[in-house]
Order: sequence, then C-alpha cells, then structure tokens
Amino acid sequence: MKAKVHFTKMQGAGNDYIYVNTLLYNIANPEEAARVWSKPHTGIGSDGLVLIGEVDMPEADYSMRIFNADGSEAMMCGNASRCIGKYLYEKGITHKTDIRLLTKSGIKTLHLNVAHERVCSVTVDMSEPKLYNTRQFIGSDNRSEQLITLTADGEDWPGTFVSMGNPHFVIFTEKLNQIDIARIGNILEHHEAFPERCNIEFAQVMDNGHIRMRVWERGSGITMACGTGACATAVAAALTGRKGRESVIEMDGGNVTIKWDETNNHIYMTGPAEFVFEGEIELPDGEPPTN
Amino acid sequence: MKAKVHFTKMQGAGNDYIYVNTLLYNIANPEEAARVWSKPHTGIGSDGLVLIGEVDMPEADYSMRIFNADGSEAMMCGNASRCIGKYLYEKGITHKTDIRLLTKSGIKTLHLNVAHERVCSVTVDMSEPKLYNTRQFIGSDNRSEQLITLTADGEDWPGTFVSMGNPHFVIFTEKLNQIDIARIGNILEHHEAFPERCNIEFAQVMDNGHIRMRVWERGSGITMACGTGACATAVAAALTGRKGRESVIEMDGGNVTIKWDETNNHIYMTGPAEFVFEGEIELPDGEPPTN
Repeated sequence: MKAKVHFTKMQGAGNDYIYVNTLLYNIANPEEAARVWSKPHTGIGSDGLVLIGEVDMPEADYSMRIFNADGSEAMMCGNASRCIGKYLYEKGITHKTDIRLLTKSGIKTLHLNVAHERVCSVTVDMSEPKLYNTRQFIGSDNRSEQLITLTADGEDWPGTFVSMGNPHFVIFTEKLNQIDIARIGNILEHHEAFPERCNIEFAQVMDNGHIRMRVWERGSGITMACGTGACATAVAAALTGRKGRESVIEMDGGNVTIKWDETNNHIYMTGPAEFVFEGEIELPDGEPPTN
Repeated sequence: MKAKVHFTKMQGAGNDYIYVNTLLYNIANPEEAARVWSKPHTGIGSDGLVLIGEVDMPEADYSMRIFNADGSEAMMCGNASRCIGKYLYEKGITHKTDIRLLTKSGIKTLHLNVAHERVCSVTVDMSEPKLYNTRQFIGSDNRSEQLITLTADGEDWPGTFVSMGNPHFVIFTEKLNQIDIARIGNILEHHEAFPERCNIEFAQVMDNGHIRMRVWERGSGITMACGTGACATAVAAALTGRKGRESVIEMDGGNVTIKWDETNNHIYMTGPAEFVFEGEIELPDGEPPTN
C-alpha cells in the first residue's frame, strides 16, 4: 500500500490548483507529482500543484511553491495566492488576516476580507507595473504615447505593453465578441516586437463600467482568467484614459477588482477564492513514503 | 453547511468517471450533479457521473446509471462497468466475481479477474454485434463483401460498418500515424451514408499482432478510448480476415482484449479498471440534503 496524501482542490477565477499542506505531507518530488496529478483523466486534473509550507524567517509567515502541470516551477500566481489565504484561515492554521507569503518571486502580502469567519475575497499586492518596455518601443515616457500599433492578419492592433513581471500587450476594442482570439492572439504572441513572446489581452469597456477581458496566454493559449493580465489591463485602461485607478475586470473564469495605488504605485488585486473538493491520492511511483 | 457526498474517481482505458454509492448518498438530481461536477476547473472534472445502486429483482445484483458531462443519461459504458466491478469487490460490497449489472440498456454481466484480493481486470459481456446495416449498404450478407468505400477529402476510405448498439465505421490502414483523424473523422461522421452520424475508427495491425486504434467519437471528437469502438474494430478485423476471434486493441488510453465467442456470438471485452482518488464534495446548489 502506497502512502496517501490529503489534498484540497481550490479555484480562483477559474484557475484551479491542487493544494497540499507540507506541514502534514512531505512531497519529495513535487515536479513529478504536479505532472502526474494534473492530468485530467488519470490524475486529479488541475493547472498545477501548490505546496503550502512554514518559513523560518521574520519577514514571512508561510511559503508557497507552485508547480505547473508540466512540472516546471512557476514564479508566482495571484489566483493561487488568494486561495492559500482562504486555506490558511478557514482551516484554522492562522487567525491573521494579513499574511506574508514567501514565493519564488519574493514576499507577497495578502489581505483577507473576512465576514462570519468566512474569507469572502482576498486582496493580493501584485507589486508595481513596469512600463519601460513601452518607452523602449515608442521612445518616450509620455503616458499619452503609450499606444503601439502592431499588424496581424492584415489588420492594425493598437495596444499597450505592460509588464507585471511577465509581459502583456493589452488591446482595447469595441467589438470583443467578433475577434478570433485564438488566431490573432497566436500571431501577436509571436510578433517580432516580442522577442520573448507575449501574453495578449483583448478588452472592452462595457455599459456597466466593467472591463470585459479575454486572454491569450503565452505558451498556453486561451485560458479562463489571468491575474497578471487583469492587472495589466487595468493599468492600460488607466494609461489610455478609459478608466481611473480602479477597475473591475470580467473574465470567463470570474471577476477581479484591480486598484492602482497612487501612493506606492503598487497594484492590488481583489478576487474570489473557492474550495472545490477535498481528496486523498497515492503518491506517484518513485516517490518515497511521506512522513 | 451543505451536505457532502463521498465520491471515488476511477478510470478504465482513460475513460474517467465520478462514482457514488447511492446506498450511502442520495443524489436527487444526478443530471445537475453530473454537469456541475464534470467541469474541469470548478468541479471534479470527468467524463460523467456513475451512480451505483441496489436492485430489487432476482435477475440483477446491482444497478448502474451513467450521466454524461452534459447531464444526459447514457445507455451503457463498457469502461465504466469494469470500474464498477472493481469498486464493488475491492470496497467489500460484494464477494462475487460474477456480477449482473442492471443498466439502461439491459442487464450486463461482468467477470472479475481477481488475484491476491485485487481486481486485475474485468471482462464485460458486450452482447452481439449487429451487421445488418452493412448488408443494407452492400446488398449482401456475405462476409467477404463487408467492405464499403466512402470518399472524404478526395480520398477513398474503405471500411466496415458494425453496430455495437451504437454505429461504428472501422477503417484499416497501413499508415495510421499519417492520417489527420480530426479532419477525416469529422467528414466521415457526417457522411451522407450515416443519417444518424457515426463513430469512426482508424486501425492498423501492428508488428506485435495487436491492433492500434484511434477513434473519432460521434459528438465528442478524438477521445482516448472507446469500448464499443474497440469491439467494433475487433469484429471488423475478424470479418476482413486480418485477425481471428481474439484481438488486443491498443488505444491512447490503454489496451483491451476483445473476444468474439463462436458459441453465442457475444463480444467479451477485458480491460483495466483503476482507482484514481477518493474525495468529498458538496452537492450542487438546488440539491436537497442527502440522507
């Protein structure tokens, strides 16, 4: 009988991961577990595996490691860190509502919005947007000149280049539903303007004032939601005068609220985190028994 | 707090379902549960929901109802019934190794191949193949004339039409890896020869004597495996003299062995059944509490 690991399936805006508390279960080979468990038919099925751990440093409360479905380790995921906040609080591991999470891209802070002992939403500090790449393109740091026009499939696509640690090209349009995201997204991802390729966001300001956004993720294609893409879209909306410093971004997987703080230039993303189910699964072959 | 249901995720040849023992948990609205739980990001993710129950009749031991991911009720699934055999035996619900299962398409018998208290494989009686549709096409019941040639994309595709309760068109080829299954399968599914559309199997006899098969399923597209398609492929191989009455069918999701019994004309499919994980999930909104 192989060792069994208790896991929790959670999702935030349609981004679903397998969460394991490494204080209780040791995953010696998380790359392999992420690969095997993320498969839809023979595994649990997920976007990847998230390991929650303790840290021995005064600057952080807990650690988070994210492994993608292909086994590679991710830097950070806003949607996953919201879920960790809910996990830590609702499972009684912490009573704090401000949590400092050590990630591969540094310490990220979460604020839990709690009512009746339930975490209704979580706000993540997504750090500062970087716009210097835009200036590089257009030779200016004047915000009114943020627009770059790229050509794909014989059409012009004016957009704004924003880095949230990863690159985004945000295109505002009046006809979001008519755009072939897969075709245009794929062409622009590989446009010569982006030597390291790029995530492509298509966005439209709706009658309710929200921004509807669909994303073509670099290396993944169309996904239900993208946390950094939502941040980049809100930044682009502010830079081009479409919105102020706060926007609601509606994605296929759910809505997030983005606030661009004037005092420290940081982006704060507030959004949902949901438990989906609890489970138990054997460690994949080759994994030593857990403690 | 909503009622929680214990479920088991199992797979056979890559066909994965959520299994619930309705002796312990009542699912009042299985169509809704199948739809909500089968979703990959916000649910468990599966090909559907299988309810295992007791029956009050001398002709059967247990009942099986299968709900597809879209909520519709399926007639029968060979891969799912193998998993039920393993479930009933290894969870100690029965000690029988021959089980009669009441399904929407009648009573199906399973034989469990047990070693060291583990169910290694399960054999399902898939009933008799029906060939009359072929005769209808070619105006003959002579088995040497089973081949029908259809044209798709400017090429001829000679194949054999076999019904296993659902229709299959089995094409043997020497160049399986070079065929664009999605394109040709889609064209042939909707060919005018099939007023109710058709499942399309592409098969090749390999050097090891096994038959490699890839399937385009009516309404689903390319899938990892198809139990009735494997049966139809073995029948077509026998009818065209490529194999005798027993074949191993290799599919992307796994292998099954098909035996066409000379004495009763029944097809017996033997294949794997695997536990993937155990879980607990809340009933979807609108479901009354379980008993």
